[in-house]
Amino acid sequence: MSGAGRRGGAGPAAFVQPGSVRAGILITGTEVLTGIISDRNGPWLSERLRQTGVDAASIQIVGDRPDDLLAALKFMAAEGMALIVTSGGLGPTADDLTAEVVGRFCGRRMVLDERLQRKIAEILRTMTNRWPALDPQAILASNRKQAVIPEGATVLDPIGTAPGLVVPAPHGAGPTVVVLPGPPRELQPMWERAKDTEAFRAAVAGANVFRMGIVRLFGIPESEIASTLRAAQAAGLSLEALEITTCLRRGEIEVATRYEPAGQPDYDALIDFIASRHADMLFSSDGSTVDDQVASLLHDRRIAVAESCTGGLLAARLTDLPGSSGYFAGGVVAYSNEAKSALLGVGEGLIERRGAVSNDVAEALALGAIGRFQADVGVGVTGIAGPAGGTEEKPVGLVCFSVAVRDGERITRSVRLAGGRVDIRDRATTVALHLLRRVLRGEAQAPGY
Amino acid sequence: MSGAGRRGGAGPAAFVQPGSVRAGILITGTEVLTGIISDRNGPWLSERLRQTGVDAASIQIVGDRPDDLLAALKFMAAEGMALIVTSGGLGPTADDLTAEVVGRFCGRRMVLDERLQRKIAEILRTMTNRWPALDPQAILASNRKQAVIPEGATVLDPIGTAPGLVVPAPHGAGPTVVVLPGPPRELQPMWERAKDTEAFRAAVAGANVFRMGIVRLFGIPESEIASTLRAAQAAGLSLEALEITTCLRRGEIEVATRYEPAGQPDYDALIDFIASRHADMLFSSDGSTVDDQVASLLHDRRIAVAESCTGGLLAARLTDLPGSSGYFAGGVVAYSNEAKSALLGVGEGLIERRGAVSNDVAEALALGAIGRFQADVGVGVTGIAGPAGGTEEKPVGLVCFSVAVRDGERITRSVRLAGGRVDIRDRATTVALHLLRRVLRGEAQAPGY
Repeated sequence: MSGAGRRGGAGPAAFVQPGSVRAGILITGTEVLTGIISDRNGPWLSERLRQTGVDAASIQIVGDRPDDLLAALKFMAAEGMALIVTSGGLGPTADDLTAEVVGRFCGRRMVLDERLQRKIAEILRTMTNRWPALDPQAILASNRKQAVIPEGATVLDPIGTAPGLVVPAPHGAGPTVVVLPGPPRELQPMWERAKDTEAFRAAVAGANVFRMGIVRLFGIPESEIASTLRAAQAAGLSLEALEITTCLRRGEIEVATRYEPAGQPDYDALIDFIASRHADMLFSSDGSTVDDQVASLLHDRRIAVAESCTGGLLAARLTDLPGSSGYFAGGVVAYSNEAKSALLGVGEGLIERRGAVSNDVAEALALGAIGRFQADVGVGVTGIAGPAGGTEEKPVGLVCFSVAVRDGERITRSVRLAGGRVDIRDRATTVALHLLRRVLRGEAQAPGY
Repeated sequence: MSGAGRRGGAGPAAFVQPGSVRAGILITGTEVLTGIISDRNGPWLSERLRQTGVDAASIQIVGDRPDDLLAALKFMAAEGMALIVTSGGLGPTADDLTAEVVGRFCGRRMVLDERLQRKIAEILRTMTNRWPALDPQAILASNRKQAVIPEGATVLDPIGTAPGLVVPAPHGAGPTVVVLPGPPRELQPMWERAKDTEAFRAAVAGANVFRMGIVRLFGIPESEIASTLRAAQAAGLSLEALEITTCLRRGEIEVATRYEPAGQPDYDALIDFIASRHADMLFSSDGSTVDDQVASLLHDRRIAVAESCTGGLLAARLTDLPGSSGYFAGGVVAYSNEAKSALLGVGEGLIERRGAVSNDVAEALALGAIGRFQADVGVGVTGIAGPAGGTEEKPVGLVCFSVAVRDGERITRSVRLAGGRVDIRDRATTVALHLLRRVLRGEAQAPGY
């Protein structure tokens, strides 16, 4: 559910390495273009291209329209892309036309690949067994179409029913096109196969290998990072070889830096500079998320949560990682006051005196969770996610947190979070994880948020 | 959290209405391009453009590089776009250069807007009060830059600190460019203001108004819809005026159809045809989601959930909608057997005999949730999300559901879900909501999933 965070940035505007290999990513599908579903493949492919040293310069999303598809391919060729990766449009139906348009773009005629046709037939047979309801006519119809490919293309065998393709440019002029299916579950393993093909290796030959470093901070506004980066330049650090972007997401600041191996010393100096100015706020410089860190800090301590306004999101995030059953004892989502008292032993008197949204109740929730689940660590969250329910003295966005170790350290805090219901619930979950991290590191008393 | 679903489609390939107004969407930001954060603005703008009768033909994502930005603008102009909407690159820092590049593209010199400069100064003053830590130098530096705009552009006053712009093409030739900030919270209200400007109205004059109809089905494979659409054509329905795409998402099938008002009878006939063939599977033809339907079906009945493998996602989804405190009594996330017994009264003997992942335990969880929270309706979910924990007879992906109305109807089912841990948790949540919907509609005994 990561939304587009607040854009920002710092240091020299991004630039293209001379002689770097550029690639374009072309996502097809009217339902992606019209926003019915959101695209996961573009960002994923961009990251993978970077890892192979290729500079993904543009991601373009077009509908199921041959003209728009062809225009996008030509644009990317004109922009000097050595490689184009497409996703989608390989299905059995009439609006699935990527293979044919790419064939036209590469000046190759379409031919039936009989081995592929047999392969697809096999796969569809097993499908029919799984779905007795399936219409056999529909299958036979789709079969042949998906086996017709541009002449000279390398076939990537289907994971689902759709094959992928690596289509070399005619006579080696212009970009090589990697054609992949839309479903991430099929696209991702097929990408690995595409990388092993001759045509792919030829297209990316001579790519610089870039490195990407990410540091994450929590508890300061983005403008502080902007001024820290200016201060770094003023202090004489060389940032020219570093492509730095900052973004604010879920209340965390992410500083992502792209550089060639030669830039490593400059990068290390920058990170030291940031760490020296924001020691208490910098929580990750190895790419790990706060979720990863909490998981390893818990180790074999068992955690329980009692949440109100986050409505299960905190439990869901703590159980997101494989193996979380090793440390997650359980959680209670207590919306009503009755539930807070009945399930977590929060005193009704306390709720009356302090109100359901109060530090005292948050603490009682944390302790109640520990008791309920015989846990070692407890987290309590209570707040007002809105849009209704806010008051003068307890406005929408006010959230109270408490993290307690059984017979040990404890943090209790109230925070006023900005944004709508979705943002408040999401950010409250992040704040809870950061407070949890601090307590687990024995830093409950340390300065900072 | 919607991932890119399986692409599909049916009927005639999509087409452009003659004389329809086309628009391009340009998303800027290296951290979006590199996949560090995912873009929410492209799909949102695409949908809004459609509502104004404008045909969003392409979404392009580029990094913070002036050359790439300019090349994308020129491509969209060459593709005959009457309107270009950009998002991002309006921040205070060095890599925020959208306004300047758009000014160059439109052939307009950059000028300081003093009213805007004062406006931004005010906003930043209030920010300084909220963030005492803030560096005043950083503020003054950013202030002037953001008030320098292309001559003749219409200013959209800031929601955050960044202003938006509507920049007319020089002498009315070429596209009008709407320049919006990246944060959805700022972009979305600013879009409404942009629509009211002269330049915008001029650019979209003569746009056809399209309609978009969406029907949702649950419990059949996508290929069944493909064959239903072929059958519709065979039965003589005219689909030529309908731009139909189907996609499979979270186990639901979405059939989205785009058409001009004149196509309404054809669309109605198509929906009747689908409904006649898939009566039990078609659950929405008014755009409502299963979440919306469950919320209104619950009305003032109170619901409680007891979940294992979904780890809080079901509670989170039920509390996602504003006003959910009206019907959501509470939830328990019971990972361990001890928690299942201690908090929900599931018999330890039962767990031993049947196993924690069994229909009997799912039912005991549903009834336990009702008892615990004095609820009217209870849902129990227990399963194996993996990657570990699967066995020969209880493999990863096996999930048991039970939905019970106090002293009333009940559904208990086991389903084998495909995909990785994330997919299984996500889809299990969707299946639970659909079973819940059926019970609340009094259709527990009806045929279907």
